[in-house]
Amino acid sequence: MDIGMIGLGKMGGNMADRLVRDGHRVVGYDTNEEAAAESASEGVEIADDVADLVRALARPRVVWIMVPAGEITDAVIDGLRPHLDEGDVVVDGGNSNYKDTLRRAESLATDGIHLVDVGTSGGIWGLTEGYSMMVGATDEALELVAPAVETLAPGDEEGWGHVGKPGSGHFVKMIHNGIEYGLMQAYAEGFAIMRAKEEFDLDLGQVADIWRYGSVVRSWLLDLTGRALAEGSELEGIDPWVPDSGEGRWTVFEAIDLDVAAPVISMSLIRRLASRDEYEFSDRLLAALRNQFGGHAVRPSDQ
Amino acid sequence: MDIGMIGLGKMGGNMADRLVRDGHRVVGYDTNEEAAAESASEGVEIADDVADLVRALARPRVVWIMVPAGEITDAVIDGLRPHLDEGDVVVDGGNSNYKDTLRRAESLATDGIHLVDVGTSGGIWGLTEGYSMMVGATDEALELVAPAVETLAPGDEEGWGHVGKPGSGHFVKMIHNGIEYGLMQAYAEGFAIMRAKEEFDLDLGQVADIWRYGSVVRSWLLDLTGRALAEGSELEGIDPWVPDSGEGRWTVFEAIDLDVAAPVISMSLIRRLASRDEYEFSDRLLAALRNQFGGHAVRPSDQ
Repeated sequence: MDIGMIGLGKMGGNMADRLVRDGHRVVGYDTNEEAAAESASEGVEIADDVADLVRALARPRVVWIMVPAGEITDAVIDGLRPHLDEGDVVVDGGNSNYKDTLRRAESLATDGIHLVDVGTSGGIWGLTEGYSMMVGATDEALELVAPAVETLAPGDEEGWGHVGKPGSGHFVKMIHNGIEYGLMQAYAEGFAIMRAKEEFDLDLGQVADIWRYGSVVRSWLLDLTGRALAEGSELEGIDPWVPDSGEGRWTVFEAIDLDVAAPVISMSLIRRLASRDEYEFSDRLLAALRNQFGGHAVRPSDQ
Repeated sequence: MDIGMIGLGKMGGNMADRLVRDGHRVVGYDTNEEAAAESASEGVEIADDVADLVRALARPRVVWIMVPAGEITDAVIDGLRPHLDEGDVVVDGGNSNYKDTLRRAESLATDGIHLVDVGTSGGIWGLTEGYSMMVGATDEALELVAPAVETLAPGDEEGWGHVGKPGSGHFVKMIHNGIEYGLMQAYAEGFAIMRAKEEFDLDLGQVADIWRYGSVVRSWLLDLTGRALAEGSELEGIDPWVPDSGEGRWTVFEAIDLDVAAPVISMSLIRRLASRDEYEFSDRLLAALRNQFGGHAVRPSDQ
């Protein structure tokens, strides 16, 4: 099928490649000329601008957006909209907040334009292994995008599904990422305890490797843990500073909105916040309070 | 090789079968006659008692114990010890606390008997998929048990390793189970949030199935989540009552002993405790306090 791809970065670029390799005609656009040139070398036709991209596609057009969530996604959709007609489909494959997706879908629908949200997991490995995709769409729009989704998935019938109406794909992807926070934190804590047990002088990379086969905790994240530890079990070159890109905190907000207790996912987010809190005012205050009521020693700070 | 297997339950019985199928001579013993009869039908030679089992084995003897951790393991080792000679090996494949293992290894060593601890993961699936095994042993003892371990592992070079001295195998298995608590809790919370989001009417089994291929959260526990949800996405027949068999709490104690913050593993244990607290005194007290200071309504209880 014909498909437009806006955003040819590490996700969109790889997805465009995977589509081209499976015989689809992909017309791509990215403001970053280097990314565009790389996609061109893989067989993606590069458009001069969004209008040019839309013109190059057969109707009804399917334009896949793979750009950062938030204002950039809004800007891309706003820029695209005047060039689209009734029956065309905008696919948002990014990590948009599902509430934004509900709003955008409602707005585009007033012009008869479909919004399909494809929650996409797989990261930089997706090019070769395929992407896991949670699709929110009307049945009509799903039919138009299904050939591309089947190409991007790990298998025709595997790793993707139509989970519900528009918005539901991004909702499920948000929860996926919230779970991911918890899984990562559980592994991180376990390996930290093993590292601290000097008596046994454990090789953490070896332990990860043992667990990869036959154990109850085997997983793709464990495979990656093994890879990370193989590069140096002290992880010396890596600062203990953990960003978050939004989906974890949205999951926690959602859990609270729905009155669902999600302590482990919440705590995983909190640990990330704490990792970036270089002043640690609350710990200073705890030390100060112990000093106040018990005369316990405080360690002087140079800041 | 010749190997004795004491305990022919769901773990020991399957392990004995896997050993027999690979050509080892297994002499088994279990006080449960039904379990013994089932193993006999798989080609395990059944001994009348522990003395009989030891007599039937070539020297140096290797006797694998697969019984519940704690007093039963102590009783089995105590019963076995008078029949063993210098150079024989006792393998504890159960979920013993590594501190017990250190104590037992030291004690058996005074008679020149080796204790090898094999932290074993894989559950009821191990028979067909192989077991993941973390081995604590001296080099000398490892050599004597290696042929059996290689048979039990998913592959000759896969899924097992000599992680350190006696005690270290059970230590690593303990941490494995602590991580398992965290992973399970993260999935459970995420699926609970999705279930609560009535707006999207999600099919939780479908979501698990999508994630199994290509997603960042794919894992063996997710595969099992999908199986559980396929039997009814409301899990109606299952009480929300979650036991723990010790390794999670030992992991939390260890983390505290080592001054390592492990909030997610700790919280996962705490959630299990809460699941079994049918009186929920702390929640009653919270409700009472809100009533005391703010006149907020309490719900009357019939107990």
